[in-house]
Amino acid sequence: MSDNKKKKPQKLKARLPRGFVDRSAADIRATEEMVAKIKAVYENYGFDPVETPLFEYTDALGKFLPDQDRPNEGVFSLTDDDDQWMSLRYDLTAPLARHVAENFNDIQLPYRTYRAGYVFRNEKPGPGRFRQFMQFDADVVGAPGVQTDAEMCMMMADTMEALGIPRGDYVIRVNNRKVLDGVLEAIGLGGEENAAQRLTVLRAIDKLDKFGSEGVKLLLGEGRKDESGDFTKGAGLNQDQIYTVLMGVGVVEDTTDTYPASQTYADGIGELMTIETIARSCGYNEDRIKIDPSVVRGLEYYTGPVYEAELTFDVTNEKGEKVVFGSVGGGGRYDGLVSRFMGQPVPATGFSIGVSRLMTALKNLGKLGASEVTEPVLVTVMDGDAEAMGRYQKMTQELRKAGIRAEMYQGNWKKFGNQLKYADRRGCPIAIIQGGDERAAGVVQIKDLIEGKRLSGEIEDNAEWREARVAQETVPEAELVEKVRAMLEAQAEDRRR
Amino acid sequence: MSDNKKKKPQKLKARLPRGFVDRSAADIRATEEMVAKIKAVYENYGFDPVETPLFEYTDALGKFLPDQDRPNEGVFSLTDDDDQWMSLRYDLTAPLARHVAENFNDIQLPYRTYRAGYVFRNEKPGPGRFRQFMQFDADVVGAPGVQTDAEMCMMMADTMEALGIPRGDYVIRVNNRKVLDGVLEAIGLGGEENAAQRLTVLRAIDKLDKFGSEGVKLLLGEGRKDESGDFTKGAGLNQDQIYTVLMGVGVVEDTTDTYPASQTYADGIGELMTIETIARSCGYNEDRIKIDPSVVRGLEYYTGPVYEAELTFDVTNEKGEKVVFGSVGGGGRYDGLVSRFMGQPVPATGFSIGVSRLMTALKNLGKLGASEVTEPVLVTVMDGDAEAMGRYQKMTQELRKAGIRAEMYQGNWKKFGNQLKYADRRGCPIAIIQGGDERAAGVVQIKDLIEGKRLSGEIEDNAEWREARVAQETVPEAELVEKVRAMLEAQAEDRRR
Repeated sequence: MSDNKKKKPQKLKARLPRGFVDRSAADIRATEEMVAKIKAVYENYGFDPVETPLFEYTDALGKFLPDQDRPNEGVFSLTDDDDQWMSLRYDLTAPLARHVAENFNDIQLPYRTYRAGYVFRNEKPGPGRFRQFMQFDADVVGAPGVQTDAEMCMMMADTMEALGIPRGDYVIRVNNRKVLDGVLEAIGLGGEENAAQRLTVLRAIDKLDKFGSEGVKLLLGEGRKDESGDFTKGAGLNQDQIYTVLMGVGVVEDTTDTYPASQTYADGIGELMTIETIARSCGYNEDRIKIDPSVVRGLEYYTGPVYEAELTFDVTNEKGEKVVFGSVGGGGRYDGLVSRFMGQPVPATGFSIGVSRLMTALKNLGKLGASEVTEPVLVTVMDGDAEAMGRYQKMTQELRKAGIRAEMYQGNWKKFGNQLKYADRRGCPIAIIQGGDERAAGVVQIKDLIEGKRLSGEIEDNAEWREARVAQETVPEAELVEKVRAMLEAQAEDRRR
Repeated sequence: MSDNKKKKPQKLKARLPRGFVDRSAADIRATEEMVAKIKAVYENYGFDPVETPLFEYTDALGKFLPDQDRPNEGVFSLTDDDDQWMSLRYDLTAPLARHVAENFNDIQLPYRTYRAGYVFRNEKPGPGRFRQFMQFDADVVGAPGVQTDAEMCMMMADTMEALGIPRGDYVIRVNNRKVLDGVLEAIGLGGEENAAQRLTVLRAIDKLDKFGSEGVKLLLGEGRKDESGDFTKGAGLNQDQIYTVLMGVGVVEDTTDTYPASQTYADGIGELMTIETIARSCGYNEDRIKIDPSVVRGLEYYTGPVYEAELTFDVTNEKGEKVVFGSVGGGGRYDGLVSRFMGQPVPATGFSIGVSRLMTALKNLGKLGASEVTEPVLVTVMDGDAEAMGRYQKMTQELRKAGIRAEMYQGNWKKFGNQLKYADRRGCPIAIIQGGDERAAGVVQIKDLIEGKRLSGEIEDNAEWREARVAQETVPEAELVEKVRAMLEAQAEDRRR
């Protein structure tokens, strides 16, 4: 006995690394439904798919990860056998830039493409924060004018409506990094030497939704202590500088009317006006596409217009508070990202949708799972020799050939109760039964499990139930497919009522 | 000047790590088409999707990689911040086993699932051999009987036909690891202590297709030198042992009729007969599902039936020789894989399809790309102010709203020739043109680029061409959508003829 115990091999523990999850059938089907709708919009806009692998050389990814100051912090990296560092992509934009640069001579610009795929962040996971998640991107490379940014905003709006989000429940908010840059120049933060401080300022502004203007003021100044007591160091601006920034992002009204007259600022405003004109010409009014100077987008690489799709309806957060659902995706112009690899400028603009976050939103709105999946008809097994198995499988195959989703019970057939329990838990609509007597008579029993479940609530007495033989038909083998089809149709009819 | 040169930042080189590739629109669309057809078959058989993430703890993956003796050789691995080793999955079976074990109490057995996803091999890449590729798996967990293996073989056969592979051009070959184990016991290679040598023997047999019986004889004996002079050490069997093995896999006829009478061997043969009976009952004859003792499958974890989908038509290999296309997928019973995590046995069987290999086969057969993608209608740009851009984009949006794939030219609009060149290279069927004169008259030009291309072959003289103004219509703005639709329909009609 103790010998036996000793020999027993140590069991492996089945567990996933933190921040990774398995996906259920319902989740996969909902994602597919959603992704197909988004894809249809992008295709309609003339975009084609292109895909890159999950690995890139680390240097090709650059150091553009949001909210990470140190290069390659937050990325999964390993060395290849030739000692070069490779990383799993953290977004779909950096790999696209590499793809365009690598195939520049074969690509016809402007290059309109889309792609959905997993990205990876080597970060501390949290609620709703995973280390692998799906993004859905669309980009136009080789498009120098802001008319492309305007088109991207309209495409985002159309995507929201294609997903069933009603007009009024979303808005595409647009700003221009040049406007922000003009403000930053005005307070003396221009130039390469101030890049780090500029980024801190941008990230502070990006927290307007989260912390409000008071919180952002602290983050622009000395810093902010959160509820848990953690202190975030601020950008160290003085009161005048903070005031100018807050005017620039539209939080404080510009009463002086002496706003920074830098060329960058003026260019930014001009571009926003062009975007507005184009959008309005096409009938996209302020309820759908709105110029909003508080939009920042946390990424360092944006060079012009930035835009964000925000869902404006309220949801209840984990603290029980009503909050606006918020951003489900966004992007902007990144004229420098491809040219890092090239000897020439390659202007580009694009945006990314957070697939699982958008899916959460659609679930909230009851806009998913419309397509109904019927569980399979179960052919039960009452005899285990090869010939009998062949007969049961043949019935199953006949149903399948007729387009009816069906399976033969593949567990231990000897406990018949387990088979019906399986059918019940799996939600099978119908069970097929053929014992020896039925076999001899050339018939099968067809059990309507949905009607049966309903009736079992009505009929209290078990004996009475069996007596009634309700929701069950005995039919000649040759009529199996026809009767099953009729029963499934009746069930579907019931559901519609 | 030299100062400028010095300041110029060093250009990054745009390149992918070896063994990884970008995927084109055509490839992505073909894969989607193929995957959708496979999925429909699996759904019809009662399978549901389930997906695991790309990372697993390294120990959960085990050391079951084909053709790798050392644990974790050939896998991409890195340590998490708590110093535990994580790896990218190398197949979809090991993660499924982990998933089932981890969620055992919530899962209703038998558990019928499918999944398509990328897997990774940290190996030397070669022609057609990538370090990231897609597999499409289906498995039934909690299914103890070989009736499930029989069903899997039928599902593979149905999948081949759903993809358009004609009957006779594929065959599902079935063997049983127990038959092989019985043979190995008979030649004295039973027991845990001979596991490594058994694996060498199995891998030698697996090379029958590649090296023929003479080559396999060498691999079973002392070893084999290939054309390049590389020597592969053999299993070290003596001539009698080799003869018995070759009888066991059906290469040599069993003239003595004294075949190893071990129980394992007899069980294996019995199971194969059951599979054959069930398949034949359902009308799957030897042309579709064939018992073949030479099938091995290189993986150590199989415990019973193994099966393989082979395409039997000839293709020409890189040496110009005619060869059978060969395996596009396979699998078998792996009763031990889930139970590594559990205190109880959990029988399971499943198979995997190599998506890109199967796609190569379908391309060979001309069975892909049936679904036609129409390139977008191009709305050209002749004026760059915001108001004009708004007008061009509005036309584009009207086409899109009518379900017509369309785009406004997003490159530098000033060179009109570039716009038409773009339309030509992109394969746009129609270009829309509106200059100042047309604008004033409230009309647009619609250019049939396909008809135009055809005619430009017929009309030799350029002047004559312009004179004729062929393949071009000028219509009132209000009729734009209607005329474009009619032109697209006429083009589609032409293609059908």
